[in-house]
Amino acid sequence: MTEYIDLTRLIRDGLKAYPGDRNTILKKSKFLEKDSYNNYLLETGMHTGTHIDSPMHLTDNPNFLYEYPLDCFIGHGVIIDAGELKGDKNGKKFQTKIKDRDVVLLYTGKAELFGSDEYFEYTPDISEEFLNLLIEKNIKMLGMDCSSPDKFPFPVHRKLFSNKTLMIENLVNLDFLLNVEEFEIIALPLKIEADSSIARVIAKIEH
Amino acid sequence: MTEYIDLTRLIRDGLKAYPGDRNTILKKSKFLEKDSYNNYLLETGMHTGTHIDSPMHLTDNPNFLYEYPLDCFIGHGVIIDAGELKGDKNGKKFQTKIKDRDVVLLYTGKAELFGSDEYFEYTPDISEEFLNLLIEKNIKMLGMDCSSPDKFPFPVHRKLFSNKTLMIENLVNLDFLLNVEEFEIIALPLKIEADSSIARVIAKIEH
Repeated sequence: MTEYIDLTRLIRDGLKAYPGDRNTILKKSKFLEKDSYNNYLLETGMHTGTHIDSPMHLTDNPNFLYEYPLDCFIGHGVIIDAGELKGDKNGKKFQTKIKDRDVVLLYTGKAELFGSDEYFEYTPDISEEFLNLLIEKNIKMLGMDCSSPDKFPFPVHRKLFSNKTLMIENLVNLDFLLNVEEFEIIALPLKIEADSSIARVIAKIEH
Repeated sequence: MTEYIDLTRLIRDGLKAYPGDRNTILKKSKFLEKDSYNNYLLETGMHTGTHIDSPMHLTDNPNFLYEYPLDCFIGHGVIIDAGELKGDKNGKKFQTKIKDRDVVLLYTGKAELFGSDEYFEYTPDISEEFLNLLIEKNIKMLGMDCSSPDKFPFPVHRKLFSNKTLMIENLVNLDFLLNVEEFEIIALPLKIEADSSIARVIAKIEH
């Protein structure tokens, strides 16, 4: 049996954007009674809610997100409790856990604070050693249930982007994966001529 | 080896909407040189480009698209050349080809006309018998590389919606699947509080 877990935050009117960006606007634009069909108009930045960052977000990399192969967005998943990162001074703890080309998820437990100042100010403890391990393993994506792995000048973003590693921010439901042995991550962004994109992110578990 | 084929139309500024809706607006909203990061602002209806229709589009069904189980969006694919529908007066030709809970794709060859009047006016020949077969097989989704399976008052939409069958419109690259024996369709819409949603749709082929 195949089970899917949705790791995506719901897009609704007023969804709070990262400080500096505009909140999402989602309005009903056509009405069944009057127009004979329903439709909604969405106005959103590409870094609001659950989304995938590509190097163009912070660098002069010329590739739009749609130019990345689909293989970048789908892969074997591994989850790490961000609380365990703190004691990890050499990344060795995760040497065997993380495999080549994995999608690595960081569970921070902050998802429930979404929208608050605390949520947008929090960043996990990512050591340089851990970051080097992610590069060494050439992971496909680093995902997390918080708004960012770092603050200006964004050393984690930049290091990962230098390796063309993508990032997924504002995930939810990662706690459901904490005790799952094997799962696949399918993280599909829009096919869009933009630096990054809002995305639907799910985990696939075979029972 | 796993191969992925992208069946999604590129979202770019000015992407043409179905007559009556507004064309997509996609503008760069933040600039690396000035703002220290890039971002894009997207304004789009939910029925523009490659998208998934749910019953709320044309009926008073109260469920937003995000409320459908993820299992509805992923399934075994089967492709049918729309040219073969015409001679099919009883749906028998496809009785064995279409399996229970398949995702059925109609290849119309019209994708290259996208944006023209001809594109938006075309509808494939879908007989009542064929439609009954889709209901009998309880297919998950009917996808096509044209803008709509029908015109007002939308009998195909309504029949499928009465069975809670979803539809995917404005697909591309379906010709790549015509000679593929086995493939899976992964069609992920946004997780959005709307009747329907723009989506990333891909085919997965195991070699």
